[in-house]
Amino acid sequence: MSISTDAGAERFAYQRLAEALAGQIRRGTLRPGDRLPSVRGMSRKHRVSISTVMQAYRRLESLRLVEARQRSGFFVAARRLDRVPPPAMSAPASKPATVGTCALIAEIVRAVADPSAVPLGAALPDPALLPVRALNRSMGSALRAAGATATSQLRAEGLDELRHEIAKREWNVGRASYHDEIVVTCGASEALELALHATTRPGDIVAVESPAFFGVLQLIELLDRRVLEIPTCPERGLDVDALVSAVESHPVRACVVTPNHQNPLGARMPDASKARLVEAMAERGIPVIEDDTFGELYFDGVQPRSLRAWDRTGTVLRCGSFGKTLAPGFRVGWIVPGPRYMEAVRRVKLATTIATSGPAQLAIARYLAGGGYDRHLRGLRARLRDNVQRMAAGIAASFPEGTRISRPTGGFVLWVELPGNADSLELYGRARDAGITICPGPIFSSHGAFRSNIRVSAGHPWSEKTEWAIATLARLARQAWPPGE
Amino acid sequence: MSISTDAGAERFAYQRLAEALAGQIRRGTLRPGDRLPSVRGMSRKHRVSISTVMQAYRRLESLRLVEARQRSGFFVAARRLDRVPPPAMSAPASKPATVGTCALIAEIVRAVADPSAVPLGAALPDPALLPVRALNRSMGSALRAAGATATSQLRAEGLDELRHEIAKREWNVGRASYHDEIVVTCGASEALELALHATTRPGDIVAVESPAFFGVLQLIELLDRRVLEIPTCPERGLDVDALVSAVESHPVRACVVTPNHQNPLGARMPDASKARLVEAMAERGIPVIEDDTFGELYFDGVQPRSLRAWDRTGTVLRCGSFGKTLAPGFRVGWIVPGPRYMEAVRRVKLATTIATSGPAQLAIARYLAGGGYDRHLRGLRARLRDNVQRMAAGIAASFPEGTRISRPTGGFVLWVELPGNADSLELYGRARDAGITICPGPIFSSHGAFRSNIRVSAGHPWSEKTEWAIATLARLARQAWPPGE
Repeated sequence: MSISTDAGAERFAYQRLAEALAGQIRRGTLRPGDRLPSVRGMSRKHRVSISTVMQAYRRLESLRLVEARQRSGFFVAARRLDRVPPPAMSAPASKPATVGTCALIAEIVRAVADPSAVPLGAALPDPALLPVRALNRSMGSALRAAGATATSQLRAEGLDELRHEIAKREWNVGRASYHDEIVVTCGASEALELALHATTRPGDIVAVESPAFFGVLQLIELLDRRVLEIPTCPERGLDVDALVSAVESHPVRACVVTPNHQNPLGARMPDASKARLVEAMAERGIPVIEDDTFGELYFDGVQPRSLRAWDRTGTVLRCGSFGKTLAPGFRVGWIVPGPRYMEAVRRVKLATTIATSGPAQLAIARYLAGGGYDRHLRGLRARLRDNVQRMAAGIAASFPEGTRISRPTGGFVLWVELPGNADSLELYGRARDAGITICPGPIFSSHGAFRSNIRVSAGHPWSEKTEWAIATLARLARQAWPPGE
Repeated sequence: MSISTDAGAERFAYQRLAEALAGQIRRGTLRPGDRLPSVRGMSRKHRVSISTVMQAYRRLESLRLVEARQRSGFFVAARRLDRVPPPAMSAPASKPATVGTCALIAEIVRAVADPSAVPLGAALPDPALLPVRALNRSMGSALRAAGATATSQLRAEGLDELRHEIAKREWNVGRASYHDEIVVTCGASEALELALHATTRPGDIVAVESPAFFGVLQLIELLDRRVLEIPTCPERGLDVDALVSAVESHPVRACVVTPNHQNPLGARMPDASKARLVEAMAERGIPVIEDDTFGELYFDGVQPRSLRAWDRTGTVLRCGSFGKTLAPGFRVGWIVPGPRYMEAVRRVKLATTIATSGPAQLAIARYLAGGGYDRHLRGLRARLRDNVQRMAAGIAASFPEGTRISRPTGGFVLWVELPGNADSLELYGRARDAGITICPGPIFSSHGAFRSNIRVSAGHPWSEKTEWAIATLARLARQAWPPGE
């Protein structure tokens, strides 16, 4: 560090000193918790007056870069989330592509399931946050009451007990639904599969958000469709203007959109964008597959609306799930395909899994009818919001300067952008070796974009282990890409 | 009827009379239970002696076409199964085709599920034949013991508890299997889907039996593969010679074979054919997808072997299920894809349903571990064999002359070929109107073949209702196609 101290510039010396120190803090040479040199030492070293150093330190304090501790001196302050920006709007390749990341995704999904690791990888709620015993009780009473229904009934659409309960809840998302408009599925993943089968053919182009949920990319690769990634804002979701111009340049046959608490961004589309999206696609006859897996996990007290609220032409296929709120292992989700695609969806279901597992359907139906689900959801939302905030604060405070962090409006994942040339696949590997799972950014893109991003999940109760994991990730990130001096 | 009675031919008159009556019986002019004209009346009408008529009637009796009843005269005998031939070897179109019957299949599968009808359509075991209470008990104790496993564990391969139990049973089919070679699926239908995805691409040709299980045809249509149907013998199953010459003329990428108790034929391939099939396909690098859904339901006391018993190159993908023996509604099956396709199968599972429903897996694992499954299967096989024999006898006795009936070696469906220009879609419609479901033959073909065939299921306890249904089907068949005079 070199501070000019010639006499003529003395009166600006405190500013230059403050700027130099701020640069060191921003670039990570001085890190959160580091002690600044003593005022006296600094004065001697740079040949400036004590009051100049004090002025510089107070200036840094007012910028919240340092904090004074009684009788101990000045310390670099922990970075606070409000000084960390969210990632910018994505800028994906503007050409349709085949997905080539399925092998990578499969490898990572397997690694992420390692039960011995700190699980920041999988976007799954911890069993401790789920009503496991109440569900088991519901299973018992449902099976006793239902006789042979669970064993023997095979209905492609699902059991009426559950369809009625789902239909009641669907009224909360801005559009009345009836039980016979619903097909119960093996989780949201099968709902998306049915929707893609029902609306597209091999070779067709499917528009998706960028970054996209990797499960959708896997499905598109498996079904030999092609993908077109659309710029997406980490806060306001899919860029509808960009989508409209994309479908004007390319024969897009369907789009998959997660309007609420997008995975991995946590973004929520404003109602105006939702309305515009539905209208613009309906005009062009392009079906919109809505993935509302995280819709129930809102942080602001109001359930966001489904795209179906604006659907006048039956071109929205809505997919939901109990996998993030109740029982991932039950594999129960649903699709509301609308009248136009109902028969096609039903046929695909019949040709693939025929029906959804009976016991899981009956247990969830009984649990929902019992009335405890809304109370459970209220508690779950509060826990997850708290987890997400703590994790974001922890990352903001400890990750390298220049890190960006998403501001989820719901759900429980964070999308983190590392500075510079960070390689998240490298970080993923090092974290795994250290006993921590994360999702590297490239699995959220068909062409390996988002190399500097990671997705971390806050679906587990906050603990010292989580704090250790965040601190370790921060250390690994710094070791791998030491900030330049 | 005109019987020549001129004096020179008198000594052959009894033979001519017998032949004429036999023809009337065979063509259905005289029907089972009909009374033959009295000996005296016949003698008067045809101006032959009493003893000539008696000779003719005794001749018919020795042919088992009529039976004498004390003091009542002679009656047309009920036709016995041993006089009814099985259908002939199929002769399908020898060119690859796209499947165009999915809409028809979907319509019929829906109609067949009508709970108010006599269910001869769906190939499902009646709940009364299944251990419903034991399974419910297993569910209760499994969920209590497993804590949050069923709620939260997501493993694409399935839960180890169940994979271990399946692996033990797999040893019975002629080839040792280990739990980590098994992927648990949402029924055999998903197992077939995974296998087709793992081995073929859109446009590829898949060889199947003719007739084929319609579920396989649905999958081939859904996945945009093409189908090539191979002649299949109702008793000895797939014609391996025909398959070998077909794969030499067409670039077949996979074949789907049901070596044991084929659906709808009930055929079983001899071991020598199985060995030859596996070897011939391995030489050409063509994977064989084995559908062994009905394998456990053998009638002769010995479990038939899996194609895997002869698989030295890892080209057999074996699919099994608990859907026909334990709990169709649980949707639990499995696939043993072999080392070559294991990773691909796992990836497809991960991209589509992610995992199989946890509670159903745990309940079946617990039930199998409890040891009652083999006893249940012994009882089930005996009941189903009895049902199949009664149904076959009933059809033989009452359906129009010229009907052919399969001789299943296991399972519980019969493949019936009606004489002449019978239209089974027409019969299906009339039966449905009468409150009886059956499967019309054309859904077992990609191009609407088997118009004169129906599949009837004997999976329900034998009852007066079943007898009424068979008699009604016989009447409808006769009404629709009155035998020529």
